[in-house]
Amino acid sequence: MPRQTRGLTIVHTGNGKGKTTAALGMLFRAWGHDQRLCVIQFIKSEKGRWGETIAAERLGIEWHTLGEGFVWNPDDMGPAILKAREGWALAQERIASGAYDLILLDEFTYLLKFGWLDTKAVLDWLRAHKPAALHLIITGRDAPPALIEYADLVTVMENVKHPYEQGVRAQPGIEF
Amino acid sequence: MPRQTRGLTIVHTGNGKGKTTAALGMLFRAWGHDQRLCVIQFIKSEKGRWGETIAAERLGIEWHTLGEGFVWNPDDMGPAILKAREGWALAQERIASGAYDLILLDEFTYLLKFGWLDTKAVLDWLRAHKPAALHLIITGRDAPPALIEYADLVTVMENVKHPYEQGVRAQPGIEF
Repeated sequence: MPRQTRGLTIVHTGNGKGKTTAALGMLFRAWGHDQRLCVIQFIKSEKGRWGETIAAERLGIEWHTLGEGFVWNPDDMGPAILKAREGWALAQERIASGAYDLILLDEFTYLLKFGWLDTKAVLDWLRAHKPAALHLIITGRDAPPALIEYADLVTVMENVKHPYEQGVRAQPGIEF
Repeated sequence: MPRQTRGLTIVHTGNGKGKTTAALGMLFRAWGHDQRLCVIQFIKSEKGRWGETIAAERLGIEWHTLGEGFVWNPDDMGPAILKAREGWALAQERIASGAYDLILLDEFTYLLKFGWLDTKAVLDWLRAHKPAALHLIITGRDAPPALIEYADLVTVMENVKHPYEQGVRAQPGIEF
């Protein structure tokens, strides 16, 4: 029988659509409950104007985008790695502050997957510093097993059908 | 190569968390893009004050809840079925109007699963009346195969870990 309320660590992973989108839905609900919210988006380019960043700006939701976009050339990785670590330092500050009800680390799994941060060091830090009442949402493909083990709630999104396969391009409001 | 933009029919199904939540995330993005939005929630009780209904009210998003909550006693099904069919009639009016960019039919699959509406009749109606540019999102468990066949994008949410198993109760901002 469910009997306690506590801050959950929630992971949305898998190759399907909807990982960030489901996190935005939680944000939307939490905003309705007047919760104190912070979003840190990794990887995604700071230059993008996404539906969610416009909406967050209008709603006064604290939002940081700390990414260079996806970088494929190993010689260009340096700035992306520095930016990602800057994002994690900011995340640590916000998490440890105790000033939030819900913090979203969007696309954070890639930092672990690429080895830009050490997964064990990140989880040890969270165990020591995450306030018990804070909900922490982490999204991205290929969540490492240790993160899945640490999390309270893990949802895997799987595509059954995807319109790209049918020649339809990404469109506003749906994909971004 | 992706080459066209058109309204998608999107289905979120599966036994995992995040079906409605991912739909709310799309709504949040679409609101950021100033799209014209309508939500019809089936099954859920009209009396509930959920984070998402509070948020939608504040944002001026058109939102209808047409449900009696989940009903398990067959003798009490009558009002639930009438309410559900009333919801579908409203959905048909809104869909056919051409006045929206995105319509969400939340928990709609149950009407098909329970046989309260005929799946083939619903899909025939959509084929004939859904405007080409309209994005239609349908959520709920056990989406019938014909609906999956009809949809452009189907995501199945699977739970890997769920806190109910660990004795944590549902909490605001996360579950509702």
